[in-house]
Amino acid sequence: METIWARRYALRTQRMHSSIIRELYKLIEKPDLISFAGGLPAPEVFPVEEFKVAAQRVLNESGWRSLQYSATEGYPKLREMIARHTERYGIMVKPENILITTGSQQALDLIGKVFLNPGDRVAVERPTYLGALQAWNAYQAEYIGLAMDDDGMRIEELETAFRSGPKFLYALPNFQNPSGVTLSLSRRKQLVKLADQWGIPIIEDDPYGQLRFEGDHLPLLAVLDAQARDGNQYTGNVIYLSTFSKTLAPGIRLGWIVAPVEVIAKLVEAKQGSDLHSSTFVQMVTYEVARDGFLDRHVQHIRSVYRVRRDAILAALKRHMPSGVRWTQPEGGLFIWVTVPEGMDTWPLLHEAVEQKVVFVPGAAFYDDGSGQNTMRLNFSNAAPEQIEEGIRRLGAAIARVLGTVPAGGVSR
Amino acid sequence: METIWARRYALRTQRMHSSIIRELYKLIEKPDLISFAGGLPAPEVFPVEEFKVAAQRVLNESGWRSLQYSATEGYPKLREMIARHTERYGIMVKPENILITTGSQQALDLIGKVFLNPGDRVAVERPTYLGALQAWNAYQAEYIGLAMDDDGMRIEELETAFRSGPKFLYALPNFQNPSGVTLSLSRRKQLVKLADQWGIPIIEDDPYGQLRFEGDHLPLLAVLDAQARDGNQYTGNVIYLSTFSKTLAPGIRLGWIVAPVEVIAKLVEAKQGSDLHSSTFVQMVTYEVARDGFLDRHVQHIRSVYRVRRDAILAALKRHMPSGVRWTQPEGGLFIWVTVPEGMDTWPLLHEAVEQKVVFVPGAAFYDDGSGQNTMRLNFSNAAPEQIEEGIRRLGAAIARVLGTVPAGGVSR
Repeated sequence: METIWARRYALRTQRMHSSIIRELYKLIEKPDLISFAGGLPAPEVFPVEEFKVAAQRVLNESGWRSLQYSATEGYPKLREMIARHTERYGIMVKPENILITTGSQQALDLIGKVFLNPGDRVAVERPTYLGALQAWNAYQAEYIGLAMDDDGMRIEELETAFRSGPKFLYALPNFQNPSGVTLSLSRRKQLVKLADQWGIPIIEDDPYGQLRFEGDHLPLLAVLDAQARDGNQYTGNVIYLSTFSKTLAPGIRLGWIVAPVEVIAKLVEAKQGSDLHSSTFVQMVTYEVARDGFLDRHVQHIRSVYRVRRDAILAALKRHMPSGVRWTQPEGGLFIWVTVPEGMDTWPLLHEAVEQKVVFVPGAAFYDDGSGQNTMRLNFSNAAPEQIEEGIRRLGAAIARVLGTVPAGGVSR
Repeated sequence: METIWARRYALRTQRMHSSIIRELYKLIEKPDLISFAGGLPAPEVFPVEEFKVAAQRVLNESGWRSLQYSATEGYPKLREMIARHTERYGIMVKPENILITTGSQQALDLIGKVFLNPGDRVAVERPTYLGALQAWNAYQAEYIGLAMDDDGMRIEELETAFRSGPKFLYALPNFQNPSGVTLSLSRRKQLVKLADQWGIPIIEDDPYGQLRFEGDHLPLLAVLDAQARDGNQYTGNVIYLSTFSKTLAPGIRLGWIVAPVEVIAKLVEAKQGSDLHSSTFVQMVTYEVARDGFLDRHVQHIRSVYRVRRDAILAALKRHMPSGVRWTQPEGGLFIWVTVPEGMDTWPLLHEAVEQKVVFVPGAAFYDDGSGQNTMRLNFSNAAPEQIEEGIRRLGAAIARVLGTVPAGGVSR
């Protein structure tokens, strides 16, 4: 029904649309459906007992303070913890460089609010994180897409991108959402060098960096930028984002921004107008859960659980995918990227998959230009290994059916 | 220090500035200072024990579900509770009409995001809620200010305001922040009628409506709009906002929007890009605290505490204010509005007040056009009655000192 509001929407709302993933969540509720959609962490690893103890402790020891308004910047002890945590990666930052956000999604929104005029360009990986496109579409951003291969964004395209004058470059160097791909060390160095030459700042989004299952941790872009100046002092050229969503729990909605103090001040102003501050209670409880090394020990546990699932999905893909289907081999994170034969569209495929009681996210959702029709994102963190095997069998059958071929699983059995 | 980001701020950033109130919070930390600034509820009334029980119950009974991602619209049981709560005011709404927000501040931000193009006009009370100006400045709104008297906004100015084509009118009809003034019943009816004639929708912001100490509850604008059509069905012409911040606790950051389903869909898209959803854990805990009539009983308790403080501040003002100072007589809420003699500026007065260890918010902050130099907002909910007496004594002394007169308190003692 049309209301009095119907003709009053702002122009920017035409660029907003409901996230496909959020819509898929409704399907996920069906009990017999196996979901590789969403970026849902495994609920089995949520530290429920620790949250119980922490909530009691906070309410016993801090009482009303945990329920009162508090500073927009965030709970001081949590900011200090994050500053120390960031230093372990190799750059010196102070608590004043940290802003606590209502999930990493809010970090993206505040960055859009502070930096993006309508028509401003942002250089993004192609594919890139859907939530970033969604946040910045609301500020009428335009995008310059950078093609990727198994080593991350292709550096030869960077100069062309920088020449068109983007406000900033947005990158997810570790186990990228959606592709699972990690930007190689040599490309990281080239990216930082070129960005510095062209005077283009970087937003480094790193929700998954701690979830490495194997191989060496690669230095952050923010760290390489400091090292290029022979130091470990934060230069401020790279704004760094991370979150507790993939290491503690997403339902608490807490992330953070590392930025120059001058930028933090602007982001604080934007956050005041957006939600005043993130929940005092949740910040204090999260600090209590994470402190004294718990977060580090817990991350080790999550890694071991997700490694098994990553192995399970890779094995299942090998077993059940028809020929002509390719996929990435992530060394960490939550996602695998699947490319089906050229000409096949994963949107109609999704309907066939739902018939087979399995879901994924069609890859085109992650492309700023709507390309990527023959791709899809698979999440492997949420389902148990035996479900993964069965789900990939169903997915292989759905693809084979659409391709009109016998699924690999059909042959091997 | 200027960084690479300094020349990259969006145009809208120039319209944003840090809230004076948030800045004053830093002063509030001083133990010997008496604060009438802020909109801080009394910490003594926070239901700490109930939150303790609720947090345990949620983590015991819902476990991982309380820590997982959840629907952008909000926790279903909380939406149902709010729909029933809204019906008690006299309009029928469904849970589908409710969106849970990260505090009422986010409601204002999402409304700006969905409705305001740069240069769009919003009709506001003069003075009006600072947080609304702050939220909408980020969307480059312009304002049409409506003068107020002791019965709320003056209706004779409405036609002129509507003629200039505002996107919507924003009103706080109950115990307005900052003035403490309540819009009279006859003006409510005239406002709803005129808005309907001119086709201008209304945002009704009602954080304090339940905190009435005396007199009759007046019908909501949303209710009057339904009644004007001889019914109790929600018409959708009025978007209604409220919050748990003043009835349970502000540190949880939970508010809500009542709007037509079509508008909720747009607001949900905007919220997805802003913070995905409000904390699952906090929503479930808040539902557990509020359920089974606790919220109603608790609101009664808050009313009785705040009534005593309102009486204390009115008595103290009478005792200590120099002649020529006027103030409002609120029947509820958290605020009193003080007008000092014409020509006196409350900004320099604030510095004198800080010397006397008392703070307030200079009234100009609440004016869209920066006028109101000789006004101030006093909050009476946060300080205990004996502090209120002493604080108003100090404030009277500060005003008298600036006026060059003997304070009333100086005479009566």
